[in-house]
Amino acid sequence: MNLLIKNVVLDGQTKDIFIEDGTIREIADNCSQRADKTIYGNNKIALPSLINGHTHAAMTLFRGYGDNLPLKTWLEEKIWPLEAKLTEEDVYWGAKLACLEMIRNGVTVFNDMYWFWEATARAVCDMGIRGFISAVFIDMFDLKKGGEEIENNIRLFEISEKYKSHVTFTFGPHSVYTVCKESLEWIRNFSEKNDILIHMHLSETGEEDTLSRNKYGVSPVGFLDSIGILSPRFIGCHGCWLDEKDCDILKARGVSLVNNPVSNLKLAVGRFFPYLLVQERDIPFCFGTDGCASNNNLDIMETMKFASLLAKYSTGDTTMLGAKDTFAIATKSAAEIFRLGDWEIKTGNSPDIMLVDPQRPELTPGFDIYSDIVYSANGYVVDTVICMGRVVMENRHIPGEEEILVNAKRVAKTLVER
Amino acid sequence: MNLLIKNVVLDGQTKDIFIEDGTIREIADNCSQRADKTIYGNNKIALPSLINGHTHAAMTLFRGYGDNLPLKTWLEEKIWPLEAKLTEEDVYWGAKLACLEMIRNGVTVFNDMYWFWEATARAVCDMGIRGFISAVFIDMFDLKKGGEEIENNIRLFEISEKYKSHVTFTFGPHSVYTVCKESLEWIRNFSEKNDILIHMHLSETGEEDTLSRNKYGVSPVGFLDSIGILSPRFIGCHGCWLDEKDCDILKARGVSLVNNPVSNLKLAVGRFFPYLLVQERDIPFCFGTDGCASNNNLDIMETMKFASLLAKYSTGDTTMLGAKDTFAIATKSAAEIFRLGDWEIKTGNSPDIMLVDPQRPELTPGFDIYSDIVYSANGYVVDTVICMGRVVMENRHIPGEEEILVNAKRVAKTLVER
Repeated sequence: MNLLIKNVVLDGQTKDIFIEDGTIREIADNCSQRADKTIYGNNKIALPSLINGHTHAAMTLFRGYGDNLPLKTWLEEKIWPLEAKLTEEDVYWGAKLACLEMIRNGVTVFNDMYWFWEATARAVCDMGIRGFISAVFIDMFDLKKGGEEIENNIRLFEISEKYKSHVTFTFGPHSVYTVCKESLEWIRNFSEKNDILIHMHLSETGEEDTLSRNKYGVSPVGFLDSIGILSPRFIGCHGCWLDEKDCDILKARGVSLVNNPVSNLKLAVGRFFPYLLVQERDIPFCFGTDGCASNNNLDIMETMKFASLLAKYSTGDTTMLGAKDTFAIATKSAAEIFRLGDWEIKTGNSPDIMLVDPQRPELTPGFDIYSDIVYSANGYVVDTVICMGRVVMENRHIPGEEEILVNAKRVAKTLVER
Repeated sequence: MNLLIKNVVLDGQTKDIFIEDGTIREIADNCSQRADKTIYGNNKIALPSLINGHTHAAMTLFRGYGDNLPLKTWLEEKIWPLEAKLTEEDVYWGAKLACLEMIRNGVTVFNDMYWFWEATARAVCDMGIRGFISAVFIDMFDLKKGGEEIENNIRLFEISEKYKSHVTFTFGPHSVYTVCKESLEWIRNFSEKNDILIHMHLSETGEEDTLSRNKYGVSPVGFLDSIGILSPRFIGCHGCWLDEKDCDILKARGVSLVNNPVSNLKLAVGRFFPYLLVQERDIPFCFGTDGCASNNNLDIMETMKFASLLAKYSTGDTTMLGAKDTFAIATKSAAEIFRLGDWEIKTGNSPDIMLVDPQRPELTPGFDIYSDIVYSANGYVVDTVICMGRVVMENRHIPGEEEILVNAKRVAKTLVER
């Protein structure tokens, strides 16, 4: 399968891009390669696609469901009762809605943690993008429950082979306050043996930090380090309550972080992502939207703006996380964390690609595409999206969009009434 | 001139809306009125349009122009040299670009402060929306310069009659650190006599607060109150450094505020808008985008999200500025501040109206339109916009859009090279 993209603007110059089996083989003024499919960029701007480092995809179904409540009431009276009723079909349509929204916003890769692993995996394959998918692993310190979760994860790891064209199996231990030491040790061993990424909430709230210090005498990072689970395979999400010592440990172990600025504000977690501590140590990080219940969208362009502006505000330095750096974090750095290779649009690389339509007021006059994308645009500037060499959205058209909207709406309403 | 809007969803029910000379005359299941123009809503959702309480419209021309610099360098080496070269034609196209972007995002009213007053006024009339327009009044404590600014403002007030169908003349004294007491006293008197709104930056930065305390021995609010300029005609923008005493004075004088959360983060002003102090005293406020140099867009939907989430984060209370309240602030409260009457879509009222297309992933499943608009949507969900009973955007089409993009781009590039 090969693809020729004619007349796109790359670093300010009009070029053709020829992609074979997902890898860029040629970038030239006029490619004469024979292609299975040719698309015409019409001077749209070609950029590497965006990566969503942390979400719970199928929570699109809960978007706007009772979210002006205190956190505890909302979780206990709204979200958890609904989640208890979720079916495989619900999650499939919720995850498909999430993929649809992400493709529209130029996202082709996401890192997920949710129930009904296989439903999300099927949705990702059907939509033609890439998912790093984990099942939520929660045992509430019950060894029996932990054992069941372990069995379930072994089963999912085995069946994940079937979805490997688009899906990478990962572990999703929820947090230090919902998973016991024994389960985490098993995850550590299995992850090491099979080289599996671990996706975990980490130092999100002050409550989490306090619980860890009360239970284990150390911070969440201190505890996780004591059982040897931290490594370059470990991806910690949120990190707002990390301190200097935590960051030293994370750096020493090669851990990556995911910054979810929108969710952190909405849930009022009390501290900003520690931009300075992370920057001083050059700890790899990328951006996540978190799930739709705490964001309430999956637009990484919007997330880039929140992250960049909060970095400036929280440090008092208006040069922090400049637009070009912010864009690189959402693309190149994220791709490194997820082991996707060099994500720049260059011959020999295999990034996914989005084409941006510059004929829009918010991209005019157009002095600096990175500034315009990070500070001014939202996901709707994306016109065409290419994932692994295949076109998943062309001129804003995604096959099956209407069916997804209808079914997601149907299962969400049924879920509430069930 | 009358307009019939068929089949829109209003408060969950499908209705027709009949508008005569800008005022809603009938809302019914099936209006049989004869209309000069009929548009078909196709079950889009009708909502009152949004109001942008503080901007510098023509700064769209500087969008993305060198904005990863320290504030001082950026102003002194980038923005001010360009502003010194601005012409009437530049501002006209910059303001038209701003109107275009705002209409696209459902904004039909904005409060402006910029150079070349008449250029912005012409742009607003040409685009068919509403502008509260002030000339930047800066005298740098030079009485001669102050006298020139006064003459200029008298002249503009007189010619503003010509634009009154769409434009309201206001005063734009820049700030307490750029305008002398004598000028402010003249503005106070003229504003009182002619009932003119005053649009001023107020307590935006710590530097401003310190300068005022050093120069006048009191905060900016304390100084302004000492010269009697504070009244219900006074609209103070930003307000991040207001303290309890300031807020007591503002409440006593009937002053309104404009919260510009995006700009405050980008410029790292050091403090959040004082949501609690303002809420406790019920001080009227609305939202502004600020100019494109410090935002960098004019999307009030995005601004609502920033404001609502920062209110939660900064107070630690996840129920602060809920979605419905936030939407009311951007519409109903803003309309009261600008004396536009009751902005709700009800018979006898004269609000502007936007039609939102709910067939989009980020508005699905659609449990709560206010939550979806504030937390999930961006301006691109707006499909059709009606201002003063006339359709200014229909099915996302705005007459003359391409010409505006071409000309704004042209003058911006020429300005840099001039």
